Amino acid sequence: MPLNREDPLPLYQQMYDLLRADLEKGVYAPGEQIPTELELARRHGVSRITVKQAIQKLVLEGRLYRIQGKGTFVARPRLPRKLKTILSFTEELRQRNIVPETRLLLLEVQLPSAKVARALQIDEGEAVVVLRRLRLGDGEPMGLQTAYLPFRLAQPLLEERDRIASGSLYEALGRLGLRPVRATEEYSVVVLDGSVASLLEVRPGSPAFAVERVSYLPDDRPIEFVESFLRADRYTLQVELEAI
Amino acid sequence: MPLNREDPLPLYQQMYDLLRADLEKGVYAPGEQIPTELELARRHGVSRITVKQAIQKLVLEGRLYRIQGKGTFVARPRLPRKLKTILSFTEELRQRNIVPETRLLLLEVQLPSAKVARALQIDEGEAVVVLRRLRLGDGEPMGLQTAYLPFRLAQPLLEERDRIASGSLYEALGRLGLRPVRATEEYSVVVLDGSVASLLEVRPGSPAFAVERVSYLPDDRPIEFVESFLRADRYTLQVELEAI
Repeated sequence: MPLNREDPLPLYQQMYDLLRADLEKGVYAPGEQIPTELELARRHGVSRITVKQAIQKLVLEGRLYRIQGKGTFVARPRLPRKLKTILSFTEELRQRNIVPETRLLLLEVQLPSAKVARALQIDEGEAVVVLRRLRLGDGEPMGLQTAYLPFRLAQPLLEERDRIASGSLYEALGRLGLRPVRATEEYSVVVLDGSVASLLEVRPGSPAFAVERVSYLPDDRPIEFVESFLRADRYTLQVELEAI
Repeated sequence: MPLNREDPLPLYQQMYDLLRADLEKGVYAPGEQIPTELELARRHGVSRITVKQAIQKLVLEGRLYRIQGKGTFVARPRLPRKLKTILSFTEELRQRNIVPETRLLLLEVQLPSAKVARALQIDEGEAVVVLRRLRLGDGEPMGLQTAYLPFRLAQPLLEERDRIASGSLYEALGRLGLRPVRATEEYSVVVLDGSVASLLEVRPGSPAFAVERVSYLPDDRPIEFVESFLRADRYTLQVELEAI
């Protein structure tokens, strides 16, 4: 189907809309190769440059990816994160039939920064347990999480290195009677620098969601402060709003 | 205060953390110029390159901005968007004492795309009212919104061009007895291309939140489907989570 040159929308934007609609309708499956630029240009009666621009935009958005010398492929769909209940990463992925995996990068006791102390409502002189984990879904890095917990509550976690390394922190907290009952989260967009980008296996400069979560016990004491980076090409956020 | 060369964290990351903490503590006010790279390098005993890297990251994140030949300045804080109730853009900004302003870019009747028809639960042959608006806060572009409403419900809006151009769509819908009572929203991160970037006065390639909202009437009929781009350097999303 040729694109519409009378349309005020630029041709590459029309081409983008068309490819994106095809991706949303499932015309191409995740992992499948899409037709070459030349083939798409012929099929829609536009220049190869136009197709290239449209594809470039979809690659930047993480909907397509390129393999050098092979072609352009369909990325897996982003994971819709329902912003309603506190779910651990492990629970969230299991619900979607994605196999969760965790790499423990750090488990140690530190003195908190001013920011961490403020979030946990503790003194800057009071130690915290720091837990940094790379979270993977179906073998692919999804996010990097650094959790800070008050040492005086979370000290027993230090004995559970193996279980935390392989499973859910919230399950471990549950065994200690410290499972949080509510949390506040704040999402912003950041641009990843080299070290985080490399752990998440994306290019430096890729955008990501930066999340700050504070979770609370039933008596309103903060039990954890978590700083996360979630790959923007792997997550969307879903929320339900009500009238005032 | 010199930075800690023993710390495994790279120096530029320590410099970044320090500057970011200063910004969060309000050491520098929005619009204020921060010390020069040379001055910061001297003060913290690091190279100018280290300071440059840290500042570069804060500029990419929209926390600082540069004026050629003048220096580096503190950006205004991001607008925390509480993801709980349906607020119109106008209401949201008024609550924060930011002066809302709207530029009406398009108000016309179209046939819907397959995606819009699906979201509004209408036939692709059924017309929609399309309303595209640039939304500004204190004179600065914050977001670009394109709303699609079923023509058979929203036709009277076409007579209200002036009021919609200057005020809230939801107020206009309220006068018609069509104020939505609930909505679902989905946020993802996209990279802005030239035309949207230029309307939002950011550089092409800047990240933004892309939002899709479907709003519903009390009888569960969709009244609007809205596609928005929100400047990532102007918004954060705040949400409260509960235990299952």
